[in-house]
Amino acid sequence: MEVMKNKFLTITTNIEGQPQESMFEIKTQTLPPLENNDVLIKCLYISIDPYHLPDKPHEAPEFITNFCGSCIQNHPWNVELIDEVKLYICQAINGSGVGRVIASENDGYEKDDIVCGLLNWAEYTIVKNENTLRKLNTMEEFPLSYHLGIFGTSGLTAYGGFFHVCKPKKGEKVFVSAAAGSVGNLVGQYAKLLGCYVIGCAGTKQKVEMLKEKLGFDDAFNYKEKTDLNSTLRRYFPDGIDIYFDNVGGEMLEAAIANMNPFGRVAVCGVISHYTNSQKQVTPNMIDVIYKRIMIQGFLVSDFYTNDFKDFMPVTTDYVRSGKLCVLEDISHGIESIPSAFRGLFQGENLGKKIVQIAQE
Amino acid sequence: MEVMKNKFLTITTNIEGQPQESMFEIKTQTLPPLENNDVLIKCLYISIDPYHLPDKPHEAPEFITNFCGSCIQNHPWNVELIDEVKLYICQAINGSGVGRVIASENDGYEKDDIVCGLLNWAEYTIVKNENTLRKLNTMEEFPLSYHLGIFGTSGLTAYGGFFHVCKPKKGEKVFVSAAAGSVGNLVGQYAKLLGCYVIGCAGTKQKVEMLKEKLGFDDAFNYKEKTDLNSTLRRYFPDGIDIYFDNVGGEMLEAAIANMNPFGRVAVCGVISHYTNSQKQVTPNMIDVIYKRIMIQGFLVSDFYTNDFKDFMPVTTDYVRSGKLCVLEDISHGIESIPSAFRGLFQGENLGKKIVQIAQE
Repeated sequence: MEVMKNKFLTITTNIEGQPQESMFEIKTQTLPPLENNDVLIKCLYISIDPYHLPDKPHEAPEFITNFCGSCIQNHPWNVELIDEVKLYICQAINGSGVGRVIASENDGYEKDDIVCGLLNWAEYTIVKNENTLRKLNTMEEFPLSYHLGIFGTSGLTAYGGFFHVCKPKKGEKVFVSAAAGSVGNLVGQYAKLLGCYVIGCAGTKQKVEMLKEKLGFDDAFNYKEKTDLNSTLRRYFPDGIDIYFDNVGGEMLEAAIANMNPFGRVAVCGVISHYTNSQKQVTPNMIDVIYKRIMIQGFLVSDFYTNDFKDFMPVTTDYVRSGKLCVLEDISHGIESIPSAFRGLFQGENLGKKIVQIAQE
Repeated sequence: MEVMKNKFLTITTNIEGQPQESMFEIKTQTLPPLENNDVLIKCLYISIDPYHLPDKPHEAPEFITNFCGSCIQNHPWNVELIDEVKLYICQAINGSGVGRVIASENDGYEKDDIVCGLLNWAEYTIVKNENTLRKLNTMEEFPLSYHLGIFGTSGLTAYGGFFHVCKPKKGEKVFVSAAAGSVGNLVGQYAKLLGCYVIGCAGTKQKVEMLKEKLGFDDAFNYKEKTDLNSTLRRYFPDGIDIYFDNVGGEMLEAAIANMNPFGRVAVCGVISHYTNSQKQVTPNMIDVIYKRIMIQGFLVSDFYTNDFKDFMPVTTDYVRSGKLCVLEDISHGIESIPSAFRGLFQGENLGKKIVQIAQE
């Protein structure tokens, strides 16, 4: 193999709370020769996700932790394994990506295979653990980036989290937070397709308009304009909330529980309010939880990579093809744009799935 | 009907937090004549339960609210219906009781029937809503008081809460708080009979000894002797907790979640720490809830009065008859002992099910 240069991203400082672009730095390395079983991948698209920041920064001072689905699937999460993941990613930051195989010393992969998996925030990644990779069944009618969003983690998170965790029924009242985000917008759309009444919240006027006009939400509001979330939800849900799909945690979760109907269900998908401020704790009223028999369920998309969800792809592909599901992608270009994309995610700048295109398909 | 005097309990002051005996007063009334459909019942046993204190005292200034299973069953709980229940109980405090029918203007009941249902904290109750009553199939081999505990609400709460909500498997690690209480002791015993590893916590040395020596818990500890619940649970559960049956809420719930295994389940049965101090909020770590896919489920025993639980009585009766389930009752005598029994409940004085015997069988 010829000597190849590789641009990759690293961080210059311990990140606690809101990330800044100045905390990132682009470095260049010479790629080492491939060893047995290695797969060299050229990154085409990288997914930008909010769950990179460590919960306990003091335990991860030198780098960003990243709990990617494929990692968790192979290593059920526990305290010891955080350390393992840390060591693994110490050399670079990683995330879900789509790429093309450039060279392979692994029998399972050959040149020009299109793969999805755990790739570095870099032009090239040498994948040593093939369990973090899978070959894609690409469909020429759709862009490859869809495999990071609607056909990938975001889609399956929304589908499994909504249908499997929330067990929705037609006509139920559904509330989605971060509803213009990569997962939230799909939850709302799946819920509408099932026949639920759906209200979402988001952080800009533009997003609120989009939810109502483009995605067919029954209503939506800008939470930044509301001082009292509890009474806001009471006004938007005079008949109570049956399902809350929680992407944010914090006060919104408390307010949703206070406005929940008996036998309400909360799918806890993300806690972005906690990622950037671990002081922001949730104090749900447990009296409500008991008397209203509320179920609060955390989940990870990695649990959905099973046969139980084999209808996800055909159903979703059909919906996209027929135009019933609207695909919201927010794509930046070039490895240099990753820091700004990542920062923007925590400031709610993205509309739908945030992706950085690293190279042309 | 002859003129009958009736002693009953009332409260002299709004109760917020820890109840005191001085807050109660015994009054005497003349029973009014029965109207159509009324059933006059002589109370034999009354159940003393911790869920009488209002969560929002400012909304219930003049009396104690009481959410009894039978009420909730007929009136699904919501904010409006609290007010309804309040009005209903304004004349007296009520709770689950076993009694004998003295006179009846109701076709469904006749003199000397033994009934269980919503009775006043009084010598006699005129029941106007027969839906709050049911006739008992008494079994001569067991005392009638068992219908308030092991064969009644406590037993069904433990049985349904453990088997239905927690979905336990043999060998799983189970933690029970308030484990010497009316429900907790049964949860621990059912769990042991299934083949789980069971640890309970309680508030006195005597209770801890009883859990280990009389009820067969694998271990038990006195939470009052522990300053750091989180590390205490880590020591008692080096392999993590699979199921937490929560009777107390507060810090214990936080510590249990922190020590939970992936796919752990929390059955939220009671929040006694909140009943007496509504400032005591629970702040579960939602990052744990997500990454460990924890399920937190509130429940009410009223939901278990269905055919799904028809095995509860035969199974439990067999266990009691064969001595596999130990029945823990803590019985005081006379209506005058109710205030002290109620106060004592919030101070952890009872060992097992707290009952007051009002009259001889």
